[in-house]
Amino acid sequence: MPELNLQRQEAPLRRLMGPGPLDVHPRVYKALSSPVIGYMDPVYLKVLDRIGELLPPVFGRTGGITNAMPGTGSSGMEAAVANLLEPGDPVLVCAHGYFGDRVRQMAERQEAEVTVIEAEWGKPTDPQQVEAELKKKSYKLITIVHAETSTGVLQPMDDIARLAREYDAMLLLDTVSSLGGIEIKVDDWGVDACFSCSQKCIGTPPGLSPITFSDRAVEIVKNRKSAVRSWYLDLSLIEKYWGADRVYHHTSSSTLNYALLEALLLIHEEGLQERFSRHYKNHKALVAGVEALGLKMLVDPQYRLPTLNTVVIPEGIDDLKLRRYLLDKFKLDIGGGFGRLAGKVWRVGLMGYSSSADNVLFFIPAISRALAVQGVKTDLSAGLDAVLTELDGNGIDAAAAEAQKIAAA
Amino acid sequence: MPELNLQRQEAPLRRLMGPGPLDVHPRVYKALSSPVIGYMDPVYLKVLDRIGELLPPVFGRTGGITNAMPGTGSSGMEAAVANLLEPGDPVLVCAHGYFGDRVRQMAERQEAEVTVIEAEWGKPTDPQQVEAELKKKSYKLITIVHAETSTGVLQPMDDIARLAREYDAMLLLDTVSSLGGIEIKVDDWGVDACFSCSQKCIGTPPGLSPITFSDRAVEIVKNRKSAVRSWYLDLSLIEKYWGADRVYHHTSSSTLNYALLEALLLIHEEGLQERFSRHYKNHKALVAGVEALGLKMLVDPQYRLPTLNTVVIPEGIDDLKLRRYLLDKFKLDIGGGFGRLAGKVWRVGLMGYSSSADNVLFFIPAISRALAVQGVKTDLSAGLDAVLTELDGNGIDAAAAEAQKIAAA
Repeated sequence: MPELNLQRQEAPLRRLMGPGPLDVHPRVYKALSSPVIGYMDPVYLKVLDRIGELLPPVFGRTGGITNAMPGTGSSGMEAAVANLLEPGDPVLVCAHGYFGDRVRQMAERQEAEVTVIEAEWGKPTDPQQVEAELKKKSYKLITIVHAETSTGVLQPMDDIARLAREYDAMLLLDTVSSLGGIEIKVDDWGVDACFSCSQKCIGTPPGLSPITFSDRAVEIVKNRKSAVRSWYLDLSLIEKYWGADRVYHHTSSSTLNYALLEALLLIHEEGLQERFSRHYKNHKALVAGVEALGLKMLVDPQYRLPTLNTVVIPEGIDDLKLRRYLLDKFKLDIGGGFGRLAGKVWRVGLMGYSSSADNVLFFIPAISRALAVQGVKTDLSAGLDAVLTELDGNGIDAAAAEAQKIAAA
Repeated sequence: MPELNLQRQEAPLRRLMGPGPLDVHPRVYKALSSPVIGYMDPVYLKVLDRIGELLPPVFGRTGGITNAMPGTGSSGMEAAVANLLEPGDPVLVCAHGYFGDRVRQMAERQEAEVTVIEAEWGKPTDPQQVEAELKKKSYKLITIVHAETSTGVLQPMDDIARLAREYDAMLLLDTVSSLGGIEIKVDDWGVDACFSCSQKCIGTPPGLSPITFSDRAVEIVKNRKSAVRSWYLDLSLIEKYWGADRVYHHTSSSTLNYALLEALLLIHEEGLQERFSRHYKNHKALVAGVEALGLKMLVDPQYRLPTLNTVVIPEGIDDLKLRRYLLDKFKLDIGGGFGRLAGKVWRVGLMGYSSSADNVLFFIPAISRALAVQGVKTDLSAGLDAVLTELDGNGIDAAAAEAQKIAAA
């Protein structure tokens, strides 16, 4: 055995304001250290049942199958794609960012017949383009990204939903950066498979992927001609564990699911509409501050995600150096751009527990200082003033009330 | 939104002595509540590097690629199968239990050309049968289960390893119930892909799957003709995140990996050989006690797993009722049999932190009482006497020393 330095790396405290993971509520940390329990323990099965009750309203789902896949958001993405598609199935992939393209890659691994509509990164998919494609050919499935984590774009869903219905295509939706922070209405939109992750607006550490399938999707999976290419992500196997049959499939992680249950309880205690308002309000305050500092947002106002803000990096700024400075001096972790936006934007997350007035108020001086270090001057007092005006008295009160709640937890 | 009862299900305390998950060390619980951190944070990348250093010796690996897949043990199984096999590849699946058969199912989903050798449940695979198959046909891959979780059988590896070399086949090994509790020598055995889980002898909650690929396996994956059917489990993508490139693949769970690092430090502090001895000693004590009570083990002595003990259920005993009694009265969770051993055996795990003298000493009176309730009398004093004789003075001292360590943690 090699000689080993046995010291554990100390876990540092960060303020997480990137694309995820985000900070989690103290009650979620408590849940994480709950005693481990067996995956067939009657008490634990009730925990899974509670998750199965509390999660559907967050998706806007009644009926179908809803629970959390045992992996990160990408496992949920692959579960959705691999269960719905068989070799040769025609699928229309709407890609207006990195994650739309990831769906394409997964669909190709199913040997589906893939057509891609690409939109500019920073814009949503244009429904007219979708309709043009649907007129040309019959598609089994349309895939689209509700909240594109690489660009900060929110996809308006009404037209896409109408088209899917009109042309009788199924709909697959990525809500990785929106579920729990923005209203999702899978029933109203006719979404057949929709997945997310645990570490963003839901508010737990990474490791689970909330997912929902419509009754129609469940039927499609039941009647497949070929086996799902992934045993691990096969809905027809895993739903026998989630459902009343309780047939062993994988060893469900009580640690992660206790945390998920606690996070869902926090969501329902807060109230969905109140939670969405909080995300929107803090987003508006952040944008006001950022723009008052003289910085620009990547996305047009009507398509901005309230959960993930993409800020254009001013010319002459060294991106990596600036983010390292924020991490070292302020313990503040924001995200860089990636793919074709690498070095061009920062991604500032305000999701779940991290969507708070005090995070916005912390970010403005920190970024102002970090820019100044590289010679770019901003008007900090204008920035803070804009934030405070947006937050107004209520915003500050809400932050204070939240702080009290935490103290009492 | 439906009306919800918002009370969180209280997490009960169990003594976990089933097939897993098992109890975890207090230091691992502490690690679980470490502050969440970003998957690209320089400190967190060091955590992943430390895991990449500490895990290979547990597998007996130098070279290749070793880390933990972001899913349960079955995700590691599928990663091993899906990366090494392409459609049409001839694979010899040795199935002497439920999990050997699961490998077969996964291989079929790759459309590999699958040949199965089935052995009786409770026996290992016979190398002569393997050789007979290898003489008939050339195989790309042999798959076998080192520690069959469904039967409690330990597969002797020397002959299988020799045959794989002799007939130039790759080797895939399931060590889900052995890694960290029994010596694994993947380099010596010429194992190309070997996977396990986090919640058994390694000693963390479920959610990760330690896995190792040989240099030869890495080459095979690089030179595949077709894409790996699972994007999520594609080694060529995930190793770009594990390795020096640090290309984003999935959002690695700092919570689970902090816990894994802590568990690996515990393993290396204890010493591998000392750890294997502890597992063996407690197993011997349990078997002595069980047999002195008049119960029978399923597996012949030379093939018994020291980590998972399969005890034959005496005639006239209601299995479910007995296990429910243990859970209700003793908070003791042991496993039932499944597949063709359902209702025929109990599976008593002594793995990782749960492999302790005090668990053995607790189990004997508990099972004796549970049998008595159903009218089966056992000689409890003979049972305990046998355990104490096996443990001898050193065993008890070790348990006491361990208890002191925990108190000091």
